[in-house]
Amino acid sequence: MTVLTAARPLDALADFPAIPAGWAYLDTAATAQKPQAVIDAIARGYDSAYATVHRGVYQRSADMTLAYEAARRRVAEFIGAAAPEECVFVRGATEGINLVAQSWAATNLRPGDRIMLSLLEHHSNIVPWQMVAERTGAVIDVAPLTSDHAIDLDAMAAMLTPQHKLVALAHVSNVTGAILDARRAADLAHGVGAKLLLDGCQAVPRLTVDVAALGCDFYVFSGHKLYGPTGIGVLWARGELLAAMPPWQGGGAMIDKVSFAGTSYAPPPARFEAGTPHIVGALGLHAAIDYVEAIGLDAIHAHESALVAAAREALSGFNSVTLYGPENSAGIVSFAIEGVHPHDIGTILDEAKVAIRAGHHCAQPLMDALGIPATARASFGVYNGPADVEALARGIERVTRIFG
Amino acid sequence: MTVLTAARPLDALADFPAIPAGWAYLDTAATAQKPQAVIDAIARGYDSAYATVHRGVYQRSADMTLAYEAARRRVAEFIGAAAPEECVFVRGATEGINLVAQSWAATNLRPGDRIMLSLLEHHSNIVPWQMVAERTGAVIDVAPLTSDHAIDLDAMAAMLTPQHKLVALAHVSNVTGAILDARRAADLAHGVGAKLLLDGCQAVPRLTVDVAALGCDFYVFSGHKLYGPTGIGVLWARGELLAAMPPWQGGGAMIDKVSFAGTSYAPPPARFEAGTPHIVGALGLHAAIDYVEAIGLDAIHAHESALVAAAREALSGFNSVTLYGPENSAGIVSFAIEGVHPHDIGTILDEAKVAIRAGHHCAQPLMDALGIPATARASFGVYNGPADVEALARGIERVTRIFG
Repeated sequence: MTVLTAARPLDALADFPAIPAGWAYLDTAATAQKPQAVIDAIARGYDSAYATVHRGVYQRSADMTLAYEAARRRVAEFIGAAAPEECVFVRGATEGINLVAQSWAATNLRPGDRIMLSLLEHHSNIVPWQMVAERTGAVIDVAPLTSDHAIDLDAMAAMLTPQHKLVALAHVSNVTGAILDARRAADLAHGVGAKLLLDGCQAVPRLTVDVAALGCDFYVFSGHKLYGPTGIGVLWARGELLAAMPPWQGGGAMIDKVSFAGTSYAPPPARFEAGTPHIVGALGLHAAIDYVEAIGLDAIHAHESALVAAAREALSGFNSVTLYGPENSAGIVSFAIEGVHPHDIGTILDEAKVAIRAGHHCAQPLMDALGIPATARASFGVYNGPADVEALARGIERVTRIFG
Repeated sequence: MTVLTAARPLDALADFPAIPAGWAYLDTAATAQKPQAVIDAIARGYDSAYATVHRGVYQRSADMTLAYEAARRRVAEFIGAAAPEECVFVRGATEGINLVAQSWAATNLRPGDRIMLSLLEHHSNIVPWQMVAERTGAVIDVAPLTSDHAIDLDAMAAMLTPQHKLVALAHVSNVTGAILDARRAADLAHGVGAKLLLDGCQAVPRLTVDVAALGCDFYVFSGHKLYGPTGIGVLWARGELLAAMPPWQGGGAMIDKVSFAGTSYAPPPARFEAGTPHIVGALGLHAAIDYVEAIGLDAIHAHESALVAAAREALSGFNSVTLYGPENSAGIVSFAIEGVHPHDIGTILDEAKVAIRAGHHCAQPLMDALGIPATARASFGVYNGPADVEALARGIERVTRIFG
């Protein structure tokens, strides 16, 4: 059906006993399945290791505090942060962006200041900025896309002005898989005195990420897309930015001293972690990072790139299929079939044991720009292999037969 | 050593194989240990059931969406909400209070409006209001305590004015275990046209809670204190209040339609759940509610009350011990030993395999009012029994011997 020799199977499927034989799970960009090592780490966290953090005077709580802070160190090392204290545990990338919007942006933006986004951003990297723009009087600009649906940095360069205080972009598009030239985006942003925030949700599971090398100022990602638990994610920010940011949520653990006469706050990261944290989520994220680094992000990227190439080749064999995104997309292939609603594609594929996503992918402005209400999207993970691409192609063949 | 016939062991310890034999875990007010049923539900959620919610067109995602919304229905039933849509999944009680502060209060309070708190509130029910008071020009009042360290509702009644728009109180104090007469607090608040928010963190694990019967307007609690997972909690609000509240965090899933020309929002609860939620946290919380309801909250309350009575009796036998809080405290006993820092009590007890908490319990204003920097606190759960009280008493005897 198609030449798959380029695909390099990682043989990682055995690490995921919960994936039933013959099920092609191609929705990793929505959320990744969990390796047994992560599930075991979570169960242990709730079991013989369980206690609260930062407060107990007994041994198990002291041990749990060490484990929680070890997870933070692991995160820092994973993304090249200068210090663990630059890494704040949040619920997910969405909360991380809202934290930057409602703490950093709400206090730094003035009426007339500008925020640069792009046309392919996820709603989580649009709506928080719309809310803070309304609050501060800042204005949002939107960088256009290239013909293969990547962010057009040339066009953005021409649009940037000294009024721009923030540029916020997806490191990897969740719809097209387009990889941003983040280093160039940082240089462009810094060239006008703006900060750069990167939404790394789709990048950390598939690329080696080093925030120092990228030169960005804020970086966010979610644990559950990185083979980790739900309800945990990371906001990384340059230490000096974080230190100057006011707290966003008030509560226990984020304070220095509370009195009704006035309250003072703890330094980062505690200042931004009000309340009992998602302790076991942090432990599970640690295990997930151990898992992907044991395979190696370069190997994962090569693996997924080969699967993308195979999928694009297989799908381009159907006359009625339109492919979106660049050839060198990272692990994600969006497509449409003429005359067939993407939801019908998804439903028919589900009957064939192929799980894809169909919809606007929380990127309605991109759908509007493409002139379609939705796409079908196949996204790959470490557990996928050539057989999954073949199952996808067979399923699409069936769709075209039914609707042909 | 003390008469323990009043204690009614629940025989629940067997449900917690992770609690080592001979370990007296008396820090349940900080966080509860997890029954195996909850750990199993979490592992299943990450295993053969795992998928994203609300978006997938394949069967497993549809099933997971049903399970996530079933958890919401279970929460609604558990606290007597009029509809599941009144229950918002948040990270924990702290985030729930911040949501009310930054959405409801930030848009409803005007300069000169007043917020009524009490002297025994947890920092999570103080700091968010201080932050919103600064933002809106509202003023905070503080209700005093009775001689046995409960909120003095008579005094509060005399302080309330039509300028008060919100009363926010602990349903059960995390330091003294004092149980609020919530129905009366609701009547007092409503009598001046104010809303009542209850911090139910320490109440839901030990009392039957029915928000309709209590008459409150907002209710928050954390899953991890209710024998459930970390990183999940609930904000309940009356439907008409929630419907009128603007969103707080922007992102996917909370929108109706996003465009750069303007974005419209989904109705509650989705409006307040931006981003991929803590899916498996909701499933674990469901299992935790099933667990405590199978025992029965009335049985749990009777059990813990008996343990509190036994502990207070045992500790009052030591001349150097001061007990705080009312006789009928719910599951929590705070105390001090003359001339011994609470941290030293905690450390010596830990050596005797008794885990208590020592500190300000995130209630520094209460500590200031009591004229002490910290207390030692023993708090009970379903797995505790008379043997734990005896171990505590033996440990305190040792402390008094060492420091005597």
